[in-house]
Amino acid sequence: MGNFADKLITEIKNKKSSICVGLDPRLDLIPNFIVEKHRQKEGDTFACVSQVLVEFNKGIIDAIKDLVPCVKPQIAFYEMFGFPGIWAYQETCAYAKSQGLIVVGDVKRNDIDSTASAYAKAYLGKVDLFGKKIEVCTCDAITVNAYLGYDGVKPFIEECHANAKGIFVLVKTSNKSSGDLQDRNVDNYATLYEMLAHLLDSWGSDDIGDCGYSSIGAVVGATYPDQAKKLRKIMPNTIFLVPGYGAQGGTAEDVKACYNEDGLGAIINSSRGITFAYKNDKKFDEKNYADASREAVIKMQKDLKVVGIV
Amino acid sequence: MGNFADKLITEIKNKKSSICVGLDPRLDLIPNFIVEKHRQKEGDTFACVSQVLVEFNKGIIDAIKDLVPCVKPQIAFYEMFGFPGIWAYQETCAYAKSQGLIVVGDVKRNDIDSTASAYAKAYLGKVDLFGKKIEVCTCDAITVNAYLGYDGVKPFIEECHANAKGIFVLVKTSNKSSGDLQDRNVDNYATLYEMLAHLLDSWGSDDIGDCGYSSIGAVVGATYPDQAKKLRKIMPNTIFLVPGYGAQGGTAEDVKACYNEDGLGAIINSSRGITFAYKNDKKFDEKNYADASREAVIKMQKDLKVVGIV
Repeated sequence: MGNFADKLITEIKNKKSSICVGLDPRLDLIPNFIVEKHRQKEGDTFACVSQVLVEFNKGIIDAIKDLVPCVKPQIAFYEMFGFPGIWAYQETCAYAKSQGLIVVGDVKRNDIDSTASAYAKAYLGKVDLFGKKIEVCTCDAITVNAYLGYDGVKPFIEECHANAKGIFVLVKTSNKSSGDLQDRNVDNYATLYEMLAHLLDSWGSDDIGDCGYSSIGAVVGATYPDQAKKLRKIMPNTIFLVPGYGAQGGTAEDVKACYNEDGLGAIINSSRGITFAYKNDKKFDEKNYADASREAVIKMQKDLKVVGIV
Repeated sequence: MGNFADKLITEIKNKKSSICVGLDPRLDLIPNFIVEKHRQKEGDTFACVSQVLVEFNKGIIDAIKDLVPCVKPQIAFYEMFGFPGIWAYQETCAYAKSQGLIVVGDVKRNDIDSTASAYAKAYLGKVDLFGKKIEVCTCDAITVNAYLGYDGVKPFIEECHANAKGIFVLVKTSNKSSGDLQDRNVDNYATLYEMLAHLLDSWGSDDIGDCGYSSIGAVVGATYPDQAKKLRKIMPNTIFLVPGYGAQGGTAEDVKACYNEDGLGAIINSSRGITFAYKNDKKFDEKNYADASREAVIKMQKDLKVVGIV
């Protein structure tokens, strides 16, 4: 059945890209021609919004699917529209997967063991429906918050193990206040995020694939390059999912520290900078929003190449 | 517009109870007569499951609504069934609210600021739908994970402030591994959970109601009474949401430390012990599952009274 890390590293090599496109739709930034088409059919309803999100995402996916190994839909921007939004999330994940993309569900779920297990089955495994095992939301990996400790992460690791899936555990996040807890000096470790990195290195040791990387990854923000350098040393076999490039201020030079010397070990996410690129480039009108996204990916690819990142 | 803490404390006083009933439905434990009724109509589908969850929950809500101030539906047990599950979650929250109960959405959401804001609007505020502001999922409060620090919690606090809503931030969770991160010695504080408690005491200071308690609460597990004692001193104005009583091993004596001397300041959650009480008492058959739940609440009330808790 394989291993998630092997699958991801293979796709990175095949596509010569470690870019992850964040699918974080914002209703007010989506082209009017998509919005109005569905408003005429469905009226001002959440059902309409859900159709708009899916059509917009499909356009992006079709435009970038041959260029990048993976996409990362952020569930908050779907969940905010209630159950029709979750329908759009499921449709988006399924479509991306059907087009050969690896799907990282950015859900940051966390809970005590039995509850974490319900989340893990929904996003990484199968759910029991009257004796039949059914896939609910087809992600290849999800993000997980480890504040509850090992027994809250274990159910996710178990599903990774059973189904060749992956997780990315929040270690050092990209936001300004991330140091409030994460940068505190703890026990014999320099900081909490470094201590968690040591735990994570050990939690992931059973799921290292032929590529030398583990399916149990880490979220490390592009906005903290010095911290990333330390984390790269603590977790040599861990794949970093790196948010914060572009709109949040992280540069190509900043994310370089997230890679190993083999030129692998990281995927760099960009959301707004790619999906809403048509807003910042007068060359494109809204009808060509997907072409603008494709060009933004190619531009990001070049930007990363300057500092030696494939 | 009032204040969430005032609303909760008033209901605790009115109903002479600080019990919170956890609505965490498990398909395999729900009475057959409910399941089969909907299977005949809807077949083996997630739509069927969603109808089953709502009917089961309504039975529980009707049976306990005059006894307790609040319910806490755990979203994982709905989300695991995809968008139909989220429909059932929204229906459950709306019905509980319509019956005069305070609804604490156990969602443990967390993210960077702009993303946290999407969650906050969905659960504590209103979402913009083509210029109209619409309530999506009507919770009075939700649980929040603060690993990302203040700017990841602030969007939730802002919605609390604007709409008289509340949050409960995970401080010391009830699970076995909760110490992996939470019990680490940090900086000048004894432990990480105590440090977070000091932060939380400050974050909640703007939202203290006439009752003397803040709308920014804390999750403190019943399974760690010594830690609860320390936390009660650090956060005198904070309401504790206390999971872990009953099935997880916490006793009435254990949860006593979560209360202030005024006999207030905590709500004690029990889920399985109440909702599936009919499974453990031969006096009840499955048709009377709701009566069993009512009796379980009354029994829990008596158990708490023995140690002096109203």
